[in-house]
Amino acid sequence: MQSAPSIQILLDELERMPGIGAKSAQRIAYWVLNSERATAERLAEAIVEVKDKVHFCSTCFNYAEDELCALWASPARDQSILCVVSEPRDSPPIERTGTFKGLYHVLGGELSPLSGIGPDDLHITELMKRLGINEVQEVIIATNSNVEGETTASYLARLIRPLGIKLTRLASGLPVGGELEYADEVTLGRAIESRREL
Amino acid sequence: MQSAPSIQILLDELERMPGIGAKSAQRIAYWVLNSERATAERLAEAIVEVKDKVHFCSTCFNYAEDELCALWASPARDQSILCVVSEPRDSPPIERTGTFKGLYHVLGGELSPLSGIGPDDLHITELMKRLGINEVQEVIIATNSNVEGETTASYLARLIRPLGIKLTRLASGLPVGGELEYADEVTLGRAIESRREL
Repeated sequence: MQSAPSIQILLDELERMPGIGAKSAQRIAYWVLNSERATAERLAEAIVEVKDKVHFCSTCFNYAEDELCALWASPARDQSILCVVSEPRDSPPIERTGTFKGLYHVLGGELSPLSGIGPDDLHITELMKRLGINEVQEVIIATNSNVEGETTASYLARLIRPLGIKLTRLASGLPVGGELEYADEVTLGRAIESRREL
Repeated sequence: MQSAPSIQILLDELERMPGIGAKSAQRIAYWVLNSERATAERLAEAIVEVKDKVHFCSTCFNYAEDELCALWASPARDQSILCVVSEPRDSPPIERTGTFKGLYHVLGGELSPLSGIGPDDLHITELMKRLGINEVQEVIIATNSNVEGETTASYLARLIRPLGIKLTRLASGLPVGGELEYADEVTLGRAIESRREL
């Protein structure tokens, strides 16, 4: 029992969030109750504001606040390299590595015949248009390393290869700092196949 | 980098929440971005509403939406047993056990000379007033089982014992389902001291 219905409503809403169970929701609810009203308001505003402001970039389909995403305005980005990712959430991890200075193209999903997701459901036509217009010299396919991601990568490779553009895929192998003993056999097998000369 | 500043603002606000790190904040932010506007609005409203509606019950200092908390209106609660807890967050776990049908008294903290928290900083005067007026027959001291909680329990015991009211403390011992091998020595020692006859 909660002595206040509004606490129960908050708990219910918090538990909808991914990764938040009953205990975490309680902890967050008590934090809200104990924090300044301004803190709670800022959080609430940030949640609604993101829904109001954020749209998809009309060219790369990444999240953006304007017609085009912020990358387009940056002179530091190399417009000749395109990184193809499945979802908008896949670009921040790549950005954090600091090793990619090109532009993105977000597919909006991955091919999955079982779930009925075909090429027409993804931003593939738009990708091909970009490759035709812009002076793209390399396409890095950074879809996930699972069945859907690999299927999508093969499909895109078949489409892009005839254009004569350099086509690459993220390497598979042991995670840096990872131990052989704990690696699954598929990853380890891939690491052996893709071994590099020293 | 985030292509949209409002996503970064949301991430910053989410990371203020307890138990939410950078990864969880990202996950929740993408969930907000992908969910219906109504879902985001309900969450935002619940956060602000709880700040507007919830106050402290004027008698037991638990969270309440009215002058008194919901327990007072319930005829099912036994007004002769009082459970003394440190914080409002301590009553829901006790309620979930379903074994306590009395009322609560929230101290609003625990005695901690090191942090400068003395008896005047807690709702102890109000507790003594309640014990004088209401027909309380038993006081269960349910402060935490740590140094501050035990100090508070001893302090309260000295105050309440002269009133001739039955005074109890939550039992210490092995958690149900717990294994002896993994119990810390203090808990195990307490479990031996408080052994019960079979």
